[in-house]
Amino acid sequence: MKLNVGLVGGTGYTGVELLRLLAQHPNAVLHSITSRKDAGTPVVNFFPSLRGHPALDKLAFCTPDEARLTECDVVFFATPHGVAMSQAETLLAAGVKIIDLAADFRLRDSAEFERWYKMPHACPHLLEEAVYGLPEINREAIRQARIVGNPGCYPTAVQLGFLPLLEAGVVAADALIADCKSGVSGAGRVAELSKIFPEVTDNFAAYGVAGHRHHPEIEQGLRRMAGQPVQLTFTPHLVPMIRGIFATLYATLMDDSVDVQALFERRYAGEPFVDVLPVGRLPETRSVRASNMVRIAVVRRPRGVTVLVVEDNLVKGAAGQAVQNMNLMFGLPETAGLVALPVSP
Amino acid sequence: MKLNVGLVGGTGYTGVELLRLLAQHPNAVLHSITSRKDAGTPVVNFFPSLRGHPALDKLAFCTPDEARLTECDVVFFATPHGVAMSQAETLLAAGVKIIDLAADFRLRDSAEFERWYKMPHACPHLLEEAVYGLPEINREAIRQARIVGNPGCYPTAVQLGFLPLLEAGVVAADALIADCKSGVSGAGRVAELSKIFPEVTDNFAAYGVAGHRHHPEIEQGLRRMAGQPVQLTFTPHLVPMIRGIFATLYATLMDDSVDVQALFERRYAGEPFVDVLPVGRLPETRSVRASNMVRIAVVRRPRGVTVLVVEDNLVKGAAGQAVQNMNLMFGLPETAGLVALPVSP
Amino acid sequence: MKLNVGLVGGTGYTGVELLRLLAQHPNAVLHSITSRKDAGTPVVNFFPSLRGHPALDKLAFCTPDEARLTECDVVFFATPHGVAMSQAETLLAAGVKIIDLAADFRLRDSAEFERWYKMPHACPHLLEEAVYGLPEINREAIRQARIVGNPGCYPTAVQLGFLPLLEAGVVAADALIADCKSGVSGAGRVAELSKIFPEVTDNFAAYGVAGHRHHPEIEQGLRRMAGQPVQLTFTPHLVPMIRGIFATLYATLMDDSVDVQALFERRYAGEPFVDVLPVGRLPETRSVRASNMVRIAVVRRPRGVTVLVVEDNLVKGAAGQAVQNMNLMFGLPETAGLVALPVSP
Amino acid sequence: MKLNVGLVGGTGYTGVELLRLLAQHPNAVLHSITSRKDAGTPVVNFFPSLRGHPALDKLAFCTPDEARLTECDVVFFATPHGVAMSQAETLLAAGVKIIDLAADFRLRDSAEFERWYKMPHACPHLLEEAVYGLPEINREAIRQARIVGNPGCYPTAVQLGFLPLLEAGVVAADALIADCKSGVSGAGRVAELSKIFPEVTDNFAAYGVAGHRHHPEIEQGLRRMAGQPVQLTFTPHLVPMIRGIFATLYATLMDDSVDVQALFERRYAGEPFVDVLPVGRLPETRSVRASNMVRIAVVRRPRGVTVLVVEDNLVKGAAGQAVQNMNLMFGLPETAGLVALPVSP
Repeated sequence: MKLNVGLVGGTGYTGVELLRLLAQHPNAVLHSITSRKDAGTPVVNFFPSLRGHPALDKLAFCTPDEARLTECDVVFFATPHGVAMSQAETLLAAGVKIIDLAADFRLRDSAEFERWYKMPHACPHLLEEAVYGLPEINREAIRQARIVGNPGCYPTAVQLGFLPLLEAGVVAADALIADCKSGVSGAGRVAELSKIFPEVTDNFAAYGVAGHRHHPEIEQGLRRMAGQPVQLTFTPHLVPMIRGIFATLYATLMDDSVDVQALFERRYAGEPFVDVLPVGRLPETRSVRASNMVRIAVVRRPRGVTVLVVEDNLVKGAAGQAVQNMNLMFGLPETAGLVALPVSP
Repeated sequence: MKLNVGLVGGTGYTGVELLRLLAQHPNAVLHSITSRKDAGTPVVNFFPSLRGHPALDKLAFCTPDEARLTECDVVFFATPHGVAMSQAETLLAAGVKIIDLAADFRLRDSAEFERWYKMPHACPHLLEEAVYGLPEINREAIRQARIVGNPGCYPTAVQLGFLPLLEAGVVAADALIADCKSGVSGAGRVAELSKIFPEVTDNFAAYGVAGHRHHPEIEQGLRRMAGQPVQLTFTPHLVPMIRGIFATLYATLMDDSVDVQALFERRYAGEPFVDVLPVGRLPETRSVRASNMVRIAVVRRPRGVTVLVVEDNLVKGAAGQAVQNMNLMFGLPETAGLVALPVSP
Repeated sequence: MKLNVGLVGGTGYTGVELLRLLAQHPNAVLHSITSRKDAGTPVVNFFPSLRGHPALDKLAFCTPDEARLTECDVVFFATPHGVAMSQAETLLAAGVKIIDLAADFRLRDSAEFERWYKMPHACPHLLEEAVYGLPEINREAIRQARIVGNPGCYPTAVQLGFLPLLEAGVVAADALIADCKSGVSGAGRVAELSKIFPEVTDNFAAYGVAGHRHHPEIEQGLRRMAGQPVQLTFTPHLVPMIRGIFATLYATLMDDSVDVQALFERRYAGEPFVDVLPVGRLPETRSVRASNMVRIAVVRRPRGVTVLVVEDNLVKGAAGQAVQNMNLMFGLPETAGLVALPVSP
Repeated sequence: MKLNVGLVGGTGYTGVELLRLLAQHPNAVLHSITSRKDAGTPVVNFFPSLRGHPALDKLAFCTPDEARLTECDVVFFATPHGVAMSQAETLLAAGVKIIDLAADFRLRDSAEFERWYKMPHACPHLLEEAVYGLPEINREAIRQARIVGNPGCYPTAVQLGFLPLLEAGVVAADALIADCKSGVSGAGRVAELSKIFPEVTDNFAAYGVAGHRHHPEIEQGLRRMAGQPVQLTFTPHLVPMIRGIFATLYATLMDDSVDVQALFERRYAGEPFVDVLPVGRLPETRSVRASNMVRIAVVRRPRGVTVLVVEDNLVKGAAGQAVQNMNLMFGLPETAGLVALPVSP
């Protein structure tokens, strides 16, 4: 099967990562990529790393009109928040499936969306239909979905780390802590003073401690797993590295006898992209660099459990998970186009 | 006043940092520096950054015999654990004061020392006399001390972060979490495969989750502050940066009405090397790079408090704090030789 | 076609890179990997990034005896210098082809080998047969070869940069300068003090200015291209990055009218792994990260030409070129297993 | 002696470095710092690293009017090109000396200034009076100067590296090559996409090969040293590090018998900030990090000489050299405020 794939946006880091993955996907044909501002520019002028690939050498950004997205089977939005929701109805009406890598279809409550993203939601009636694209939780729903809200990078790591514990009901839902560390690509390909090299390198900083947009998204997911309200402390930090999220999660065990290692191994048995490390091994971000894999270690401590999760924020935390969702939505093997090994060192 | 200063060891990172600070100290005269293995080698051959300084250009490593350390006023040990305790009695008998940057005189309980450092303690009777060199807690005792056990890098940051809360008794002592991140120089100047550049850079990893030698040292200090047993979860991580510790501390408030910002500002008013940031500002490690300053932010959250602490692990976490202790032990201004501004960017 | 592939050595960076490439190669079956010291250890214990791949999860290092290398179609040596030459005759006698990633079969003159590598050559009679594995020069010879000496990382970049100029005879052969910059993985996965993170990062240094083992290898190649003696100044530098070589080459044009851009484009037309950039574009190492591509820019200046070359030292500079040579030696498509796009950012 | 010092601009990297150096200078009193855009903002809000210093804690940016710069003894311009020349006459008329860290007073030929900086020169008549602030060449003129054009970062390193050779007339003036590598702070504290961390780190790139503004400045200096026209090839590269310039210089010796090591040692004997390394040692940028020192190695090769120069681009390449010039202009010890040792690691 060959899928006609459209890409809206694509000058950011999730965009170029989608290009890298889709160009190498056995079932994807890149139909068009839009960027009003850069229409006419070959994508390889933006991303010289893509030079030399037959499909990409001929691809140029085009205007939305030229893109003829309604001819696509699926359209990815690698755009700022607010773009996908403005085009969703037209595409759906044309029978095109949608995967949004921004936040438009992540939160089920449009009021919450509006509080955190400071804009009205353009199509709140679609929020109920949209499926939250975390396959380890919603695999069957994703298979049937017309619209997928692709999870944020932090939410993917934190939810996968807490999932077995909350589903099993073995930790206190009101005292969860997620101490998270992210590489700088997570902040996007944006010219901001706080992101230039001399401000970031050889440095470690916290940010967004007072409130981060991923907080409501994570809590929405944890609440659903726990079947009850949760209280999460979420502290994001910036690491001087390009890619990678490391989440250190702390929870209080309510039953000291539970075998948490077995719990995680059981929950994730058969998951193609979740690797529960053997007892005694700890993860590091480079072990998943440029791959869709998540690795998790579980450490018991007196009355508590520490869970350590790594992912590549641009792959499992963005573009790779989006491709995984596409595979599910079209009945392809879930791992199609996602089998490349991590790059290390 | 001029002090004759001896240095045992000095080929590691705390050693070269001591050289940098002492060479610029208005009251210190570098008397000798020992390294049996490198006797005869000029220090500038090891550390070309020190070339051009009149006192250092003439300094060479010498054998312990040549060093005539008993002529010194004070001797610093920048050595592996176990060296200082083997020479302490001889030096004390000669009237020389001792500042050990290793762990020999940090733990008051020799059994605990032996469990964590896998060696018998050579002079357990001196442990009672030795003073733990954290001036913000033990200033008066340090002034009188003949032996100072200079705190570890993590213990300095974690203790200063929890101190106001535990002294005031406003947080639960049995649910403390310290999620700590360290630059690589904290692991020493040692040729280990896990420390070479391609293994460390563009990567983030946890380590020592099952047990770290700084854990008992921190708990000893917290216990004393709290006046009761404490339970600490301590997770160290490695950051691809040279210097800096970032400690993210989580505690549960027992009284929601306490003004934690005021508590910290009051406790550290007048401390020359502790900077409590205004509400809304978050610290970053580079803001203390190469300086003896610690910066702390306090963030309230529902039923809890998050404390963020930064220090330079080689300065306030090692050599700078050692000089601060020397200043106190000899009645010098506490900030002598420690006023250089951080280097940023 | 399926090739049985053996790997001698494999705990270094070229080893793990070979594993990554070969595990994803459509025609390669990993037969065995040897490491006397680590026999019995699963490769994923060394390289957690490889966890989760069906072929690699089951692979463990074994002793040379257990490896039964004579059953292989081809054996790669990712070993220190001197190992391949000691096993070459046995393997050849068994009909096994050899690709050595060390220096044993790079220099045609055994005296020169012995001067630079400080060991006698074990099989000088094989040096004449061995083919220098730079496909852009020796493609046909490689197709017929039983032994390939895989080029060093610097030599690959420098030779490809000077090749069109020297073949065309348009530059002075006695005044060539190669100012080269390498990522740290080029120095190997070795526990050396000079390679630990705090010694390397946020730093730039020259090394080996007095003489580097790649110098005679490069000169041998340039001499052959020029058909006359050459004089090369070669200055290697260390860059705080993991992968990548950047070669800035300076040559004096003997004929000011030559169109060097056209010269390069013509020479490399059809080369699958050499990308001559359009006029005005400059290369950067990340544009080839984790890929087998070399990118080259040519810049005219008064009476001279500057050539800028980038490669990934572990791929085109080592493991990728080795796979390219394997493809040629067995009549496979030259790009088999080497089509993955660079990873950027 | 106490000097009243004004600072125009000061939100960039040379600005904050000037603040760091001047706040610790025994003879400097910070009178005012201007930034129209940020008037009223305390400098420590911009640069938290400066918090806790008595002089800086009280300092806020002010408008040019509030600054009363005519009351100063000396005013530093750490501004974009074009600002100093617009205020020079007023300040000079009031008896204020001027040190410009931008390019307004570097080039003696106003036509050349206008060609490279794309703006008319506001006071070409002052160009003849202005002194180029490289003390190793112009020490006596600087002592008498009212206006100093502080050299660029590349020009400082390249000129000091070629100086002994050209003055002695032992190399060919028409075949000079400067292969230069700079840390990212050299590009300023500016929000540009090409400077954000994920674009720069783990990467090495050339830039400005077709023409860089420092080229005419360097050639002007070399021409003067050589007493004849020179031909320089200048290739700047970007290194993923914060501070530091590494210049690898290539020249052709016209007389093979000259002792270049002795030549350099003799020329720089007594220079407080130029360290000629012993034969066999090579420099690295971290050996001068945060200090005003330049270190130089000279390497002979067949018919040529390679000179390797390191400096901190923000200190000897900008703010430190500016302070050195201030010291000379006011008869202070040349090293006042500049004696801090490099920070390493």
